[in-house]
Amino acid sequence: MKNKTDIVIDIEPISRRIIINQIETSILEVLLDFSIQIKSLCGGIGKCGKCKIIVQEGNKFLNPLSSAEKSLLTREEIQNGWRLACETKIATENKNKLKEINQPQFRIYLSENLLQEDFKILTSGKIKDTLLNPSIKKLFIDVEKPSLNKPIPDEERVLMALKLENDKDIFNFNFNVFKEISSILRESDHKITIVLRNGNEIISCEAGKTTDENFGIAIDIGTTTLVGYLINLNDGKTYSVASRLNPQTQFGEDIITRITYIKNNPDGLKKLNSILIEALNEIVVENCNKVNIKPSQIYEATIVGNSVMHHIFLGLNPISIGLSPYIPIIQHGLNVEAKKVDLNIFPEGNAYTLPIIAGFVGADTLGVILSSEIDKEEELTLIIDIGTNGEIVIGNKTSIAAGSCAAGSALEGAHIKDGMRAASGAIDSVKINPENLDISFTTINNKKPMGLCGSGLIDAVAEMLKAKIIAQNGNFNKNLIGNNRFVKKNSEVEFILVKKNQTSLNRDITISQNDIREIQMSKAAFYAGTKVILKNLNIDSQIKKISLAGAFGNYINKENAKFIGMIPDIPNEKIFQIGNAAGMGAQICLLNKDFRIKAEKLLKVIKYVEISTKKEFQKEFAEAMYFPHFNLKYFPSLIEYSNIPKR
Amino acid sequence: MKNKTDIVIDIEPISRRIIINQIETSILEVLLDFSIQIKSLCGGIGKCGKCKIIVQEGNKFLNPLSSAEKSLLTREEIQNGWRLACETKIATENKNKLKEINQPQFRIYLSENLLQEDFKILTSGKIKDTLLNPSIKKLFIDVEKPSLNKPIPDEERVLMALKLENDKDIFNFNFNVFKEISSILRESDHKITIVLRNGNEIISCEAGKTTDENFGIAIDIGTTTLVGYLINLNDGKTYSVASRLNPQTQFGEDIITRITYIKNNPDGLKKLNSILIEALNEIVVENCNKVNIKPSQIYEATIVGNSVMHHIFLGLNPISIGLSPYIPIIQHGLNVEAKKVDLNIFPEGNAYTLPIIAGFVGADTLGVILSSEIDKEEELTLIIDIGTNGEIVIGNKTSIAAGSCAAGSALEGAHIKDGMRAASGAIDSVKINPENLDISFTTINNKKPMGLCGSGLIDAVAEMLKAKIIAQNGNFNKNLIGNNRFVKKNSEVEFILVKKNQTSLNRDITISQNDIREIQMSKAAFYAGTKVILKNLNIDSQIKKISLAGAFGNYINKENAKFIGMIPDIPNEKIFQIGNAAGMGAQICLLNKDFRIKAEKLLKVIKYVEISTKKEFQKEFAEAMYFPHFNLKYFPSLIEYSNIPKR
Repeated sequence: MKNKTDIVIDIEPISRRIIINQIETSILEVLLDFSIQIKSLCGGIGKCGKCKIIVQEGNKFLNPLSSAEKSLLTREEIQNGWRLACETKIATENKNKLKEINQPQFRIYLSENLLQEDFKILTSGKIKDTLLNPSIKKLFIDVEKPSLNKPIPDEERVLMALKLENDKDIFNFNFNVFKEISSILRESDHKITIVLRNGNEIISCEAGKTTDENFGIAIDIGTTTLVGYLINLNDGKTYSVASRLNPQTQFGEDIITRITYIKNNPDGLKKLNSILIEALNEIVVENCNKVNIKPSQIYEATIVGNSVMHHIFLGLNPISIGLSPYIPIIQHGLNVEAKKVDLNIFPEGNAYTLPIIAGFVGADTLGVILSSEIDKEEELTLIIDIGTNGEIVIGNKTSIAAGSCAAGSALEGAHIKDGMRAASGAIDSVKINPENLDISFTTINNKKPMGLCGSGLIDAVAEMLKAKIIAQNGNFNKNLIGNNRFVKKNSEVEFILVKKNQTSLNRDITISQNDIREIQMSKAAFYAGTKVILKNLNIDSQIKKISLAGAFGNYINKENAKFIGMIPDIPNEKIFQIGNAAGMGAQICLLNKDFRIKAEKLLKVIKYVEISTKKEFQKEFAEAMYFPHFNLKYFPSLIEYSNIPKR
Repeated sequence: MKNKTDIVIDIEPISRRIIINQIETSILEVLLDFSIQIKSLCGGIGKCGKCKIIVQEGNKFLNPLSSAEKSLLTREEIQNGWRLACETKIATENKNKLKEINQPQFRIYLSENLLQEDFKILTSGKIKDTLLNPSIKKLFIDVEKPSLNKPIPDEERVLMALKLENDKDIFNFNFNVFKEISSILRESDHKITIVLRNGNEIISCEAGKTTDENFGIAIDIGTTTLVGYLINLNDGKTYSVASRLNPQTQFGEDIITRITYIKNNPDGLKKLNSILIEALNEIVVENCNKVNIKPSQIYEATIVGNSVMHHIFLGLNPISIGLSPYIPIIQHGLNVEAKKVDLNIFPEGNAYTLPIIAGFVGADTLGVILSSEIDKEEELTLIIDIGTNGEIVIGNKTSIAAGSCAAGSALEGAHIKDGMRAASGAIDSVKINPENLDISFTTINNKKPMGLCGSGLIDAVAEMLKAKIIAQNGNFNKNLIGNNRFVKKNSEVEFILVKKNQTSLNRDITISQNDIREIQMSKAAFYAGTKVILKNLNIDSQIKKISLAGAFGNYINKENAKFIGMIPDIPNEKIFQIGNAAGMGAQICLLNKDFRIKAEKLLKVIKYVEISTKKEFQKEFAEAMYFPHFNLKYFPSLIEYSNIPKR
């Protein structure tokens, strides 16, 4: 029997992996030891009930629910597996059992509000000048009062006033307007503001002049992050942005695990839907509070998200997307009353979801295509949208193709030993001096490092290549393994990026051979996917321009992305970082309703390529596993590779 | 101090007036003494809680709530004034107070379910052959299954199948269909039935072939009675009819008292709306049970009612209808999702309310106009719709005008001493032998008489005229007052129609001078209204045809109606009884949606005449107070009048 054993604890949703030797203390103390700051108002004595966690793996080794937990957690929370970190520890009788297992694994999910303020969620993106043509317009009208000579119904008198202000002739009233209009007219001396949708639908009436308060919200539902942009539809400006981690993360990191959850739980869809809507409604309220308006003054929402997020948002069952032949229920853009999806804006306001392209290329990608205007490009353009899922779009003004690859999550820190999301303390850029292997780095918010986020990982791998620490095939350079930058753990070699004393952890931050494999697979998926789509597009041209979209795409060192062979070898000045292009797609559909018609037209044009089932994919993928590629001729500008060994 | 006093008790909603000398017993016993059969399962010992009443007038003389009432009535019922008839009596200490008052009045409302089965509610009416063109059609389709080669979304494959069966190209899905379609397709081997509205709105999908179950309901919301006609939209046949008394009656007999109730009670509208909807939903369920379908298989409802009933049904505040200048909120036909008005049919089904013409000429009158097809008449036609309110329509194929008069309720028994609604035991026809004043009569259901309904009242008055019991001015013939058919009560003379021993009451059924005045006012309102409208129509023609609509109109002796001067003097063969024409209007709009377009066109054509404010009305009304009229030249065919004294 071993005396000590390494216990691996994965911390979600921040994708932190910590390794400890013994648990003699509570999980709260372990988290604090590793500088994972979580709220605990009472100092860990089981009084405040704030340090909520779900133990997703390893539950069987833990102590049963304490009386403090039974009193501080609701029955529903207990049913859903919530515990208090300060009260949860390995049960004494299980400690010896644990030692018999080789590297036991735990997985702990932290409640979002413990962490969120520390997160770096990409909310920005450049919107090309969009002509303002929202579907909502407000009109202030002065309605004639009724008299015995002219006993004209309220409806008719409002229509008469509207016709004076608007050249339309036929207006449809939203039924709910009739419930209020009589008293609103009489309270406001017959001076009212009409909220018009699409020029002729009267969706609301308000007392007096309220034309200035005319808001819409553009919503980006990411697998991991949610963003809401509050936009004034009169001037097209974004007045507030708010974001949240997607609370569905507690039920699985990626869309497949969430579909599985829905499949295995009768009320799974309802639960994933309701926690999503709840978080979106928090975003709505946060935005409203910043601008000092009420949610009912938001008259429209436009929504992007991948197909599964899109379906769950609408309360549609996404199971058929997860099973061959990967069929979504709907594809077209959809207009649905906000109250029917429980979105807390004006109840009869419209929630518009952008069309989805296929089961794995969703409304988010259509948002990227719309906002990038790839359909206007002369040059053949590659867009890669790097999020929890990766999507690839290639096209120009003559044709467009799109596909998806399971490539993103490594770059968000998943499956990487010291990987983490882009949060405080994440290493986001790395430099290695090839002479002495001295390392310099920066971290988010300049905090003591506790892991690497995606851009830091790409930098680290590129710098390790340049310093010949790894070869083109990704293997560690055996000649260097004696160097003090290397350490051997459980017969695996790891490269020490930051020494124990410099970290906020109790140990070194390292990069293992396995971590490099994960990066290789991720970048190979993008590169091979690009090649497969290019081939299926039947265009006799090479990529001339690249746009990197998504959170990760924005923080990445584009030269290093090219250096590791993630993207084709084109001049840096032709590589652009376009930010949250999916979210921008939602925004421009809000600013100008004509883009919704354009979205439907694009839908007919975009060719969907099911990348992984194409027979050429495997070969392309295998070759792309090399840094930058098995065949260096594809990367002619990377002259440093002449010095980097192939194996 | 008098030893005995007459206590007048008005019983609602049956409009029975009973007069007693003493209350020594409970109200239940009084009711049973007068053969007013009300449910009491326990025999009046305060155990079953069935004999619920509201004492609307005279409450101050009653005993306080008993402990039995406190335990058997809900808190809400107690707040609303409900009591148990078996526990309610005049408090001992108030008995002497009562005696000091001249003819104290009580008014008691009986809960509807105690009485209803006994009622005669007109549900029938002849529908002219209506071309079947309902807005709902069901289509059975066989949807292609998806494959990896053709990964087409559910939505798109359903549309492909639909296009094969239907020549339309653009279909809109109801959002809720998306929530079910995925599982319905997969459960039913992709063979499903689509419910289409207006040819292109997909409002529902059902597993397998369900094209036979395609129902709609036409609803007539009367001030006093509610009727629902369940119609199969495939063959246009009425499969079931169900009716209820309008439970709003407990808050007031006519629309003005209901508007007053709404004005004086903050939740008045909500209450009147909810009890109405509840009763309509009972009608829906009763109809469904008869035909063995579910309410969700009723895909559409069409609704008529006067403007106030229409507004309350929709949850719209009718207060402005009751105040000058008598403005409704809306006028046009309205389509609203059934669930938005809580109507228990298919939740996303359409509830269509016919347009209303003015504050006091509602959707019911438009229904009458539609179903009578007065717009196709060559001859100038008068329609009078006699219900709790009276409406008058005059027109032909060149023009149509309509107005309302407060004329109906006397003919429903209100304000008539022995008047009652058309229920069991009501005298519905009368003959008087002029020689000996012997009287023969018939009653509804051949029960022992307990009062007169409208047709009986008209007969009685006409026969009293023919027997010279009353003069043309309505006064009793003084020469006859010594006759044993006359009795003097409280210095007022009454004519005994049925002697005590023949009635099911404990007393004579009589007609008082005041009763005759009420009939005079009612018939004068119709006749004067007709003249005023005719004048405002600017047509140089006389009435050539008369249609009597409504429950009362159907049971009336048309010759006697003419004889008392209620309707113009035209040949009997030109007077028609068209039954519940308003309800038929709702039915034809259900059978053929084109009638809804026609309704809007008629709305532009129909001239509304505000009768009571026209200066000529008073003179016309005063002259029409005479039987048949002050000026006999208008009734040349009534030669018997040569023998009837003017005064």
